[in-house]
Amino acid sequence: MTTEEIPKTMKRLVVKAPGKDVASCQIETEEVPVPEPGAGQVLIKVTAAAINPSDYGSWPNCRPEQCPFAMGKEGCGVVVKTGSGILTSLICGVGTKVGFSNLQNKQGSYSEFVVADAYTSVFRMPNDLPIEDAASFFVNPYTAIGILDTVKSEGSKAFVHTAAASQLGQMLIKVAPSQNVEIICVVRRQDQADLLRNIGAKHIVVTGKDDSWKQKLKAKIDELNATVAFDAVAGRSAGDLLDLMPVKGTVYVYGGLAGKVENVNPMALIYHEKKLKGFFLTAWIQHGGMLATIPRMMMAGHKVNTGLSGGWSSSKFKDTSLENVQSDIVQMLNSSVTGQKLRVRLDS
Amino acid sequence: MTTEEIPKTMKRLVVKAPGKDVASCQIETEEVPVPEPGAGQVLIKVTAAAINPSDYGSWPNCRPEQCPFAMGKEGCGVVVKTGSGILTSLICGVGTKVGFSNLQNKQGSYSEFVVADAYTSVFRMPNDLPIEDAASFFVNPYTAIGILDTVKSEGSKAFVHTAAASQLGQMLIKVAPSQNVEIICVVRRQDQADLLRNIGAKHIVVTGKDDSWKQKLKAKIDELNATVAFDAVAGRSAGDLLDLMPVKGTVYVYGGLAGKVENVNPMALIYHEKKLKGFFLTAWIQHGGMLATIPRMMMAGHKVNTGLSGGWSSSKFKDTSLENVQSDIVQMLNSSVTGQKLRVRLDS
Repeated sequence: MTTEEIPKTMKRLVVKAPGKDVASCQIETEEVPVPEPGAGQVLIKVTAAAINPSDYGSWPNCRPEQCPFAMGKEGCGVVVKTGSGILTSLICGVGTKVGFSNLQNKQGSYSEFVVADAYTSVFRMPNDLPIEDAASFFVNPYTAIGILDTVKSEGSKAFVHTAAASQLGQMLIKVAPSQNVEIICVVRRQDQADLLRNIGAKHIVVTGKDDSWKQKLKAKIDELNATVAFDAVAGRSAGDLLDLMPVKGTVYVYGGLAGKVENVNPMALIYHEKKLKGFFLTAWIQHGGMLATIPRMMMAGHKVNTGLSGGWSSSKFKDTSLENVQSDIVQMLNSSVTGQKLRVRLDS
Repeated sequence: MTTEEIPKTMKRLVVKAPGKDVASCQIETEEVPVPEPGAGQVLIKVTAAAINPSDYGSWPNCRPEQCPFAMGKEGCGVVVKTGSGILTSLICGVGTKVGFSNLQNKQGSYSEFVVADAYTSVFRMPNDLPIEDAASFFVNPYTAIGILDTVKSEGSKAFVHTAAASQLGQMLIKVAPSQNVEIICVVRRQDQADLLRNIGAKHIVVTGKDDSWKQKLKAKIDELNATVAFDAVAGRSAGDLLDLMPVKGTVYVYGGLAGKVENVNPMALIYHEKKLKGFFLTAWIQHGGMLATIPRMMMAGHKVNTGLSGGWSSSKFKDTSLENVQSDIVQMLNSSVTGQKLRVRLDS
C-alpha cells in the first residue's frame, strides 16, 4: 500500500451505549477519518485483533460519557506510513510486520487503521510469522508471564488454574516448564483434559460429572504444595478454591465468568489466614513504580519473544468480522465453550 | 484460701460433642481433679471469665477427638498456690489478682481453678481494680491494639468498623484517639449510635432503616481517606464494604456473624486491586516470627495496661453461671443485640 492508496476514511467498531451485558450493548461500526501519524508514530493497517475477556468484560461497564467507546486493546498489522522523527522509519519502516497494544487517543484495535508510538506501543514480529498469528501477542502472553511471576513471588512452585482450557490456560501449560512451575489444571470436561494432556499438562482435575473432584483437587494441592490458585470463574468457584487452599494460601481472581464471588468461608480468612485478591495485567506491570516496571517488562518481553519463535503463544482462532463481533461473542458466551478464541479479521 | 482449703475436685465446662451451632453442641459441666501447679506455675482460683465470639465460634467447629473440649480462653482470679521456682512466688504470690490467657494442657477458663505459667500466661492486675472487671483483659484489648496497628501498617489513618457497638468496638473508640486513628462506626440502630457518640465516636453511619447508608458511608470513606475496613459480620456485609472501599482498599474479616461472605465483585478485586483478608489475633501476634512478636507484645501490653488504669477496657457485663452459659449465649445470639457482653462468674 503506497501513501496514495491510503484511504481518507475507515471503519472501526465502537460501543455507542453500554448495556447490562454484551448482548444488550449498542455496538456499531462507524466511519471516521484515517488518523495521521505524528512525530515518532507509525500508521498501521490492521490485519487482525484478538477479542479478549478483558475486552468484552469492559463493554457493558463503560460509562455513557466514554461513548463512542472504541473497542479492542491489541492487534497486529503492517506499517504503511511513518511520522517524522529520525529513528521512526528505522525502527519500523513501511512494510514492517508489527503487533501493537497500549493505543492512545481513544483508539481501538477493531479498526482498519491505527496510529501507535513506534517506541513504546509497537513490537516488531518475526518475518516468518503469518502476521495474523500475532493478533494475540500482548494481553494473554504477558498475563501468562505475570501469573507465573506472581506464583513464584508467593514462594509457591505450583498453582491451581481454573478455565485451564482457555487460550491463556494453554499458553500457561506451554511456558510453565521453563519457569519450573507446576500447574494443576481444572477443567469441566474430559475432552478438555485430553486436549491439555496432549500439549503437556501433567496435573488435571475434571469437575464435570465427578462428585469427588474436590477431594482429588485437594490431594493434588497437598502433593504439589500449591499455595496459590488463579481463578477466572468467580461465583462459587473462588469460595470453593479458598476452602481447598492450605493455610495462608491465596486465591487470585482474574475473571468473573460466573458473576459475584460467593461462599467465602470467613473462618478460612480468619483462622487460616487465607486471602482473596485480584490479578490484573496492568497492575502487575506497574507494581512498584517505573523503576520496577522497566526491568519487569524487559524480562516479560524477552520471555514472550522467546515463546513467539518457540510457538507457545500460537493459537487457533475462530475468525469474525467487524459486523459479526457482537453476535459471535454472544454465541460463544452462551455456548460456554472454553478454549475458543475469537479474532477480528480486517484484511478480508 | 489456704492450701488446706483448696478442694480436691472442681467443676469446669466442656463441649462433649460439637454440633451445627452453639445450641446443638452438647455442653456439660464435669467434675475433674484440681490441677497441681508445676515449677514456674501458679494455681488460680477463677473469679470470672469472658465469653468471646472467638469462644462460641470455636465450639461447633471443634473436632470430636478434641472432646471433652474445655471452654474459655481467658479469665481472671486470685493466685491461691504457687509451684516451685525461686521467682514464682515473687512474681505472683498467693493473693495476687491476675488475668490469665494462653492456658496449656487442654484447660479452659470456664473452670473453678486453672494452673498457668507465671512468666508467660499470667498478668498482674491493678490492686484497685475489682478483679472480675479483668475477665476480658486479653482477647478484646489486644485485638483492639492489633486492629489499630494493622490500620496504621496499611498506611491509613481511618477505617470502617462494622459491629461498632460491640465491646471490642467500644474499646476501639476509646483507644483510637491516642493512636491518631479515626473510626467510621457502622451500627444498625439509632440507640447504638447514641451510645457510641456518648463515649466519643465522631463518625457514625446507621444502616437500619436508611436506604442511603451506603452513600453516607462512601462519603465518610472519601472524607477520611479510609483504605481499610474491619468487618465482624461477613455475609453480604463484607462484599458491600469491598464495593465501597477505594482502589487498593482492603476488607479484613474478623468474625462471621452472618455466615459465608457473599456478593464480592470480581471487578473490584481485579481492576481496583481490592483485597479480602482475615484478621486473627494469634496471627497478628505471631506475624514475622519470635523476634517480631516479643516487641509487638511488649508494645501491646504497655498500651493495654495504660488503658486498664485509664478505664478504656472496662466493660459492662451480663453475668451468667457455668450452668447457664449455653442457654444465655443462645438467647443473646438469637436476640441479635450487639454490645452485650457475657461473663461467667465462678465466685458466686
